[in-house]
Parts: sequence; C-alpha cells; structure tokens
Amino acid sequence: MSLIIAVDVGGTQIRAATYLDGQIKPIEMARTNTHAPHTTPWEQLEKLIAALFPRNQKVDAISVTAPGPLNPYEGVIYRAPNIPEWKDFPLKELLQERFKVPVFLGNDANLAALGEWVYGVGQGHHHLIYITVSTGIGAGVITDDRLLLGTMGLAAEMGHITVLPDGPLCGCGQRGHLEAVASGTAIARWFEQELAQGKPSLLAGTKNLTAKEIAQAAQSGDGLAIAALERAGQFLGRALADFLHIFNPSLIIMGGGVSKSGDLLFLPMKKALQEHVMSPQYLHGLEIVPASLGDEAGLVGALAFARSQLENRVPW
Amino acid sequence: MSLIIAVDVGGTQIRAATYLDGQIKPIEMARTNTHAPHTTPWEQLEKLIAALFPRNQKVDAISVTAPGPLNPYEGVIYRAPNIPEWKDFPLKELLQERFKVPVFLGNDANLAALGEWVYGVGQGHHHLIYITVSTGIGAGVITDDRLLLGTMGLAAEMGHITVLPDGPLCGCGQRGHLEAVASGTAIARWFEQELAQGKPSLLAGTKNLTAKEIAQAAQSGDGLAIAALERAGQFLGRALADFLHIFNPSLIIMGGGVSKSGDLLFLPMKKALQEHVMSPQYLHGLEIVPASLGDEAGLVGALAFARSQLENRVPW
Repeated sequence: MSLIIAVDVGGTQIRAATYLDGQIKPIEMARTNTHAPHTTPWEQLEKLIAALFPRNQKVDAISVTAPGPLNPYEGVIYRAPNIPEWKDFPLKELLQERFKVPVFLGNDANLAALGEWVYGVGQGHHHLIYITVSTGIGAGVITDDRLLLGTMGLAAEMGHITVLPDGPLCGCGQRGHLEAVASGTAIARWFEQELAQGKPSLLAGTKNLTAKEIAQAAQSGDGLAIAALERAGQFLGRALADFLHIFNPSLIIMGGGVSKSGDLLFLPMKKALQEHVMSPQYLHGLEIVPASLGDEAGLVGALAFARSQLENRVPW
Repeated sequence: MSLIIAVDVGGTQIRAATYLDGQIKPIEMARTNTHAPHTTPWEQLEKLIAALFPRNQKVDAISVTAPGPLNPYEGVIYRAPNIPEWKDFPLKELLQERFKVPVFLGNDANLAALGEWVYGVGQGHHHLIYITVSTGIGAGVITDDRLLLGTMGLAAEMGHITVLPDGPLCGCGQRGHLEAVASGTAIARWFEQELAQGKPSLLAGTKNLTAKEIAQAAQSGDGLAIAALERAGQFLGRALADFLHIFNPSLIIMGGGVSKSGDLLFLPMKKALQEHVMSPQYLHGLEIVPASLGDEAGLVGALAFARSQLENRVPW
C-alpha cells in the first residue's frame, strides 16, 4: 500500500490531496490561501500538509507542483510567480526536514504533461507535447517515455521561443515570444490596442478585458474578438510546426483556459500548422486533443511524478 | 569480440569502415562514388559493403548513416538529398536480405550527435545539442542520456524552425527557417544579394560564391563578408536561446564547414544568445564547443548507433 500526499502550489491557493496506491481518486483533499495575514506561504503550506498528514500510516512521499522555474533534482524553487518570498527557496529540503519523508518537486506544466500521460488523454503514447495556454504559456514534453527536464530541470519552456522577432514584450523580459503573442494576456493586450485604434467591437468601452470575455464575445460573433483568437491560433499553429520538427510527437495536448475557446482558436491553429509543417509525415497519425484532467492536472501530475520517482518507472 | 561495418552514405560518396570491439580506429576502410555510369546507388553501396565483408568472421551489424528524412525504426529512407532514386527506400530490409546480419539506419546529424556523445567532445554530458552548419543545418539531441528521435524518427530538425516569419525560402519549401538564413547556402545568397545592390567587397564580380570563400574574405577583413557571418551568427544565437529554453542542455556542439569560420561567426552568435536567453540560469555551466570528430563523424556515429542498439545501452 502506498500513500502519497500531492500538493499544488499556486499564487492564490495551495491545494493538497492524499492518494492511495496510485489511484486517481483522492482519499482526502484540503486547500488554503497562499497569502494570509500574519503568516507566510511556507507556513500555509506546512500547516496544510500537517492537517492531511496521517497519524498512523506511513507516508511514502510528498510531491509538490509549483509554477515558475525550479530545479527538480535539487528541489529548489528559483522563482515563483506571485510568491515573491520564494527566491532560491529550498522547498524539498525544508519539507523533508519537517515531515521526514521523501519529497519531490516539479514544474506545474511539466507535471501536468506527466499526469496526462499516466492518467489522462496521453496514455499509450511514447512522444507527446502538452501545452497550456492561459495567462502565460507553459508546456511539458514526454519523449521516448520520459519527461523532458534538461540538465537543471528548466527544459520545455515552449512559451519562450521567439515567434515574432522584436515583437511584444514577454513576461520574461524578452520580446516576441510565443507567450507574448498567443497567451490570454497577449490576446487581451492586442484586443485593447485594436479597440484603442477605434476598431468596432461589442466590447468597446470595457476596461481590463480578459481573454475569457474576448472568447465569449467571439462566440457571439464579434468580429474583432474572432480576429484576436484567430491571430493567437495562427501563432500557436506556426509554433506547433516548429515543435513537430523538433520532437516529432504522436500527440499534442492543449490545456489551459484559453484552449477552452475551442474551434475559434483551434481551426486557425490547425490551418497554420498544416501550412507551416515541412512534410506531411509529421502530421501522419498526429492527434491534437484537449487536456482531460482539468483543475486536477496539478495534483494528479504530482501524484504521477511521485510514483515515477518511487517506482523508478520514469528515471531522470 | 564484436565486428561492425559502418557506412556513411552521401550524395557524392559512400564511405565504409570496419570497427572491432567498438574501438574508434577502424581496421579497414573503403569508399566509392554514389553515382556512376551503368549502375545504381544501391549497387554501389552493396558492392562497397561486400568488399569489406569478412569471409571468416561474424559481422555483428551493418550500421548506415544517411542524409535526409528517414525512419530509423523501420529502416526506410523517405528521401535522400542528391539520391533521387531512393524514395521510401527500404534500405534496412534490403541490406538484411543481402547480408543476413542486423542492420541499423539513422539520420546523419542525429548519429553525428550520438558519435560526439559516445566518442567525442560530448562524453560525460547527459543533455547536449549538436548542430551542424554547412550547406544546410542539421542537428541531433541527447536528452537524459538518450538520442531524441520522436515517433517516426523525424525529430531534432532544428534547422527547420521559423526564425524570420515570411523570410527567405528554405530548402524544405517553407520560409524563414533557421536553415534559410544561417546555413552556408543562406550566407552566400544574402552576400550575393548585397553585392547585386552595389555593396563594396573584395569578392565583387565573383560568381557562384561559397560560404567558405566568404569566410576567407572575412578573415582578410572584408566588411561585407564579416557582416554576412555576423548576420548568420545572430540568427544562430537567437535560435540557440530557443533551444536552451526547450532542452536546457549542458553542452552545445557546433559542427559543419560554416562553423570553421570561428569567432567571426561564434562571437556574434554568443552575443545574441546571451541577449535572448530569458534567464542566466540557462547559461550556468553551459559549454559551446566545436565538433571533434570531423569527417569521421558519420562513420563513428553509425558505429555508436550500432553499439547502442546491440548493447541496448541507448534504448529507443
């Protein structure tokens, strides 16, 4: 019998769940706010795990998924968006000292890819790419039945390839990255720029637009909103062609809120992909599907990561 | 004792060598022209291997490296540049029928990467990228101690990512690929366009320029030639930043004739890489080095591939 506590650390909330024998249905769940008065994110995390930690049962591992660049080998979070307290933060060491069990740490998009591969829509594939398009763009890659991590665990940052040289500023400080033209943030920015230039839209006059509102307007037939999704889809499709040439996967999994825009995003994306792929062989047998794990992707990914580490089924 | 016949098929020449016990020094070598009157490339290949094939010794494998897209799992060459006869050509099956020994087939840049990793400058690294810049741009990737191949063996085509949307035509038919702006062919094309516009150069008036001649002029201080290498280096450096974000390797190996231009190419390349990498962590401990195997890369790569297959040391 194996007991794993999976933890999904976000900038707003921390969620945790206890899993038995690798079963995807948790036996217990809990959540807390990341930030609260008179406490720190570390204390919030520690209290949440302590609340779930069983008294009379052996815990095989605590497995944490967190956003931002981190080193899964050393268990150090280099930087966590919306958690400024955590800079070069030795999370694995601290948790191991506190709870005396093995601790694993992985990047959220990487582990979501692993989760989809082990428990979700990626089952049975040996080479797949998972891309999550929300406020930013994250990714994870399974190649040859292994999670792509790189020498410090910083690989698979596919939102940060240059698709428009000298293009819009990216959250990372560079310009023209895929994230800077096709993420939810980028869609909203482009849309607002067009509005400011007087382009007509149902949303004219609305402030602080989100990609979700733009997608809803697009569903209602708003031309400018449709154009915004089309533009993002085209950039995604071009980038996917690059990724096919680099990884030659049999599956692309699209996750994240923006992907819920459906065909208004996916049809221009697939068209651009077909136009920009250098040989039809890359499309042979290729499937492009929505992510299947939804909000559970983080926790399930952390569970899959712990299992892969404990069972050594996905060595790295 | 193991005996491996490695074969390097090129558009002009076919070379073969016999290797004993995985030693990098061959015990016998031979070569022939790929094309000759009253014969076919297949007959040339078959005759060359037959000439090397020992009478009284067991051959453990024939291992072939070839340019262009091919399927290493099925041993089929989809297309070979300068060998129009080979289209969906089942080379592995034909050689196995003819010589009754195991046959392995791999892409030339992929196997050169493997060769550098096993026998060359990549030894000891777990994550590396090999890029060869010559008439085209080829690549191979070792990630997590394995050769990146993808579902049909078409991965690692890093010359075919879009670095300049709607840019110059690439050999593959797409536009703005790295190969279309930074290969030897691309350097010569850009240089000739600048000459045609009246830019001054020592090479003005020369026809059918090669990247080698341009590199020599650059060494002599020719401003336009220096600018041509600088431009290619800048595109390479930007693309390398993308590749670091995708693979987070500890080593980049630069091969191919154009890479022999040295610092005139490498300094602008490294500068662009540093400017475009999104976090200095990707450069931490990163080495960028010239390839070490020279003309032997193909044969040595084929040897390494056969060994990895026979010993199952690099499963795929």
